[in-house]
Amino acid sequence: MSIATNSYVPGLGGIIAAQTRLSNIDGEAGELLIGGFPVEELANRASFEETVYLLWHDALPNAGQLADFSQALVARRGLPDATLTLLREAAVQKVHTMDALRMAAATLSLRSKSGAEDDNPEQDAMTVVAAFPTIAAAYWRLLQGEEPVAPDPSLGHAANYLYMLFDHVPSDDRARDMGTYLNTVVDHGLNASTFTARVIISTQSDMISAVVGAVGALKGPLHGGAPGPALDMVFEIGEISQAESYLRSKLEQGDRLMGFGHRVYKVRDPRAEVLSAAAERLYKADGDITLYNLAREVEKVAVRLLDEYKPGRHLQTNVEFYTALLLHGVGLPADLFSPTFAVSRAGGWTAHCLEQSLADRLIRPRAEYIGVKDRHWVPIEKR
Amino acid sequence: MSIATNSYVPGLGGIIAAQTRLSNIDGEAGELLIGGFPVEELANRASFEETVYLLWHDALPNAGQLADFSQALVARRGLPDATLTLLREAAVQKVHTMDALRMAAATLSLRSKSGAEDDNPEQDAMTVVAAFPTIAAAYWRLLQGEEPVAPDPSLGHAANYLYMLFDHVPSDDRARDMGTYLNTVVDHGLNASTFTARVIISTQSDMISAVVGAVGALKGPLHGGAPGPALDMVFEIGEISQAESYLRSKLEQGDRLMGFGHRVYKVRDPRAEVLSAAAERLYKADGDITLYNLAREVEKVAVRLLDEYKPGRHLQTNVEFYTALLLHGVGLPADLFSPTFAVSRAGGWTAHCLEQSLADRLIRPRAEYIGVKDRHWVPIEKR
Repeated sequence: MSIATNSYVPGLGGIIAAQTRLSNIDGEAGELLIGGFPVEELANRASFEETVYLLWHDALPNAGQLADFSQALVARRGLPDATLTLLREAAVQKVHTMDALRMAAATLSLRSKSGAEDDNPEQDAMTVVAAFPTIAAAYWRLLQGEEPVAPDPSLGHAANYLYMLFDHVPSDDRARDMGTYLNTVVDHGLNASTFTARVIISTQSDMISAVVGAVGALKGPLHGGAPGPALDMVFEIGEISQAESYLRSKLEQGDRLMGFGHRVYKVRDPRAEVLSAAAERLYKADGDITLYNLAREVEKVAVRLLDEYKPGRHLQTNVEFYTALLLHGVGLPADLFSPTFAVSRAGGWTAHCLEQSLADRLIRPRAEYIGVKDRHWVPIEKR
Repeated sequence: MSIATNSYVPGLGGIIAAQTRLSNIDGEAGELLIGGFPVEELANRASFEETVYLLWHDALPNAGQLADFSQALVARRGLPDATLTLLREAAVQKVHTMDALRMAAATLSLRSKSGAEDDNPEQDAMTVVAAFPTIAAAYWRLLQGEEPVAPDPSLGHAANYLYMLFDHVPSDDRARDMGTYLNTVVDHGLNASTFTARVIISTQSDMISAVVGAVGALKGPLHGGAPGPALDMVFEIGEISQAESYLRSKLEQGDRLMGFGHRVYKVRDPRAEVLSAAAERLYKADGDITLYNLAREVEKVAVRLLDEYKPGRHLQTNVEFYTALLLHGVGLPADLFSPTFAVSRAGGWTAHCLEQSLADRLIRPRAEYIGVKDRHWVPIEKR
């Protein structure tokens, strides 16, 4: 297929705007590669630090490299005082969690005067990845009327995020679950937020500016980062016996089932598989598998009914459904789902920015003018 | 010409990513329409408020509409306290003026508790347009160690910006010059910052997020918003008699001449014409036309030599050359050129966001995977 260069391409559908070695989506086969690894092989084995290193350097780190990299991140976890002051004010006004993240992320150019760094893309990328969990956790605590918890340098990225949220060192299993989530959604082709970051950095602007733009794009409901409603549906169903009648009635009313269907995947999203396995382990370990079993049954019935009501559409479980179940199991409220998605995707955004900088090419499409062409000035008294 | 949908399009060159009624560039003829008006007819007649109204509503306002619109903007000129606190800290650290603008813009979701507004695109657009001059002026004053000057509700947009910068009500002529500048660069097709804003809003994110992304893109040198160096060159030349030898030596060394050449225009940028005329009037009125005459001569010689050294490239004066001359004449230091560009372009960005929202279509191109496909997990001790 080809596209005429003088015709408008709505949504840039089908246009290839970048080359990347960061992730590969095969929507027909239901396969996702992260840095060359099948997501199901990488996600529950690597620490988040290893995954980010892989994306930035195109190879997993050895022990020495990982220690240096982790240490560099630990050193950047703290927030400037001005950032915390701003978050306090945002919490008073009960600003949306993603708006608060965007505001605070934009302040990360405020460097401590001891660290005399200029605009350095890799240093800035490290600041972004290191500071995002601190921002998300601090703001959520402030929203609850609680004081932020300072990062613990002895904890890894995922464990420290949970620690800063709950003021409690998580079990290794819990930290592993969070790490698995962070790895699973760290990168996913040229989604709208990643594309935003690449457009901004393509002007030779700085990494912080690019990531702040990406946070803004991730906030949008069409981006697909809203797993809350998928879980709400499971709670509303409440019991396995109610699944079919509830879902059938939704579909009869023409409602969309949250957590099902994806623009790219025509089979089960491979990330759903990874997160579902992690959720199963978590709920089992916690001794109450009821919610997990309910969710599995809701999924089974939903996929069957979707095939009945929308034949040929191949609507399958997407990543949001099991994101919600896993993050709920880890103890996160729905308001934290999107910021936690950003904590993960910060790894992908920064990697794409580093990659786009090497391409060294301004991303600048054209617009088609559809307005009038022959206006002439009329003084205000004659309008 | 056509483009295969399975081949990478570097920089999205030639691809039409949006339809717009906001501005039309004819690079061959050297014509620019703003809201249907030739830029040279609109720029020095309309107030900035009229131009923004035109972009948002596709018609110039009548007297009543303009009064209401201006009043609504005046009511939004003030900054949240938290924004000023943040700017004070940024000034202590001497953050780049565009980084400070991006940080402060990101805080504009902090609403005063009296104005109980939800995410409302047109209200947010008004906040952005109204508050950008206040941010730019306050930060520049803080950088100089001076207190910000509160906006004066009796002054129009352009006059008030100059007033907040210099703590001095400008003459009508000076305010007209600033208004002409703001109108001239308010919109220019799908440049990288405008495209960024459209990508972000296309996810159904909010206006503030979109504009903050745009500020980040505008900061990049490849965006073309760096008029400072063009003026530096004129100052270095110093005297008309030195122009040819200076420029010839630059070209012999293979240096780029700042302020000349544009990706789109193959003839003189029509905005250069408008700004040059405004600059001529300004320097004449001020009683010293020396710098203006020098700049005109530098332009003449530069265009002639560019044709000699780079025949067939049609490198002509671009908007930056006379932007620098005009803004310098108005009293602005070079550090304020980019933020002042943003003060203007805020009108275009917000208009594009309102337009893109109506298109209601996620902008989401694809990436081509060029990485390896067969990696398998190796434990850290074996790497």
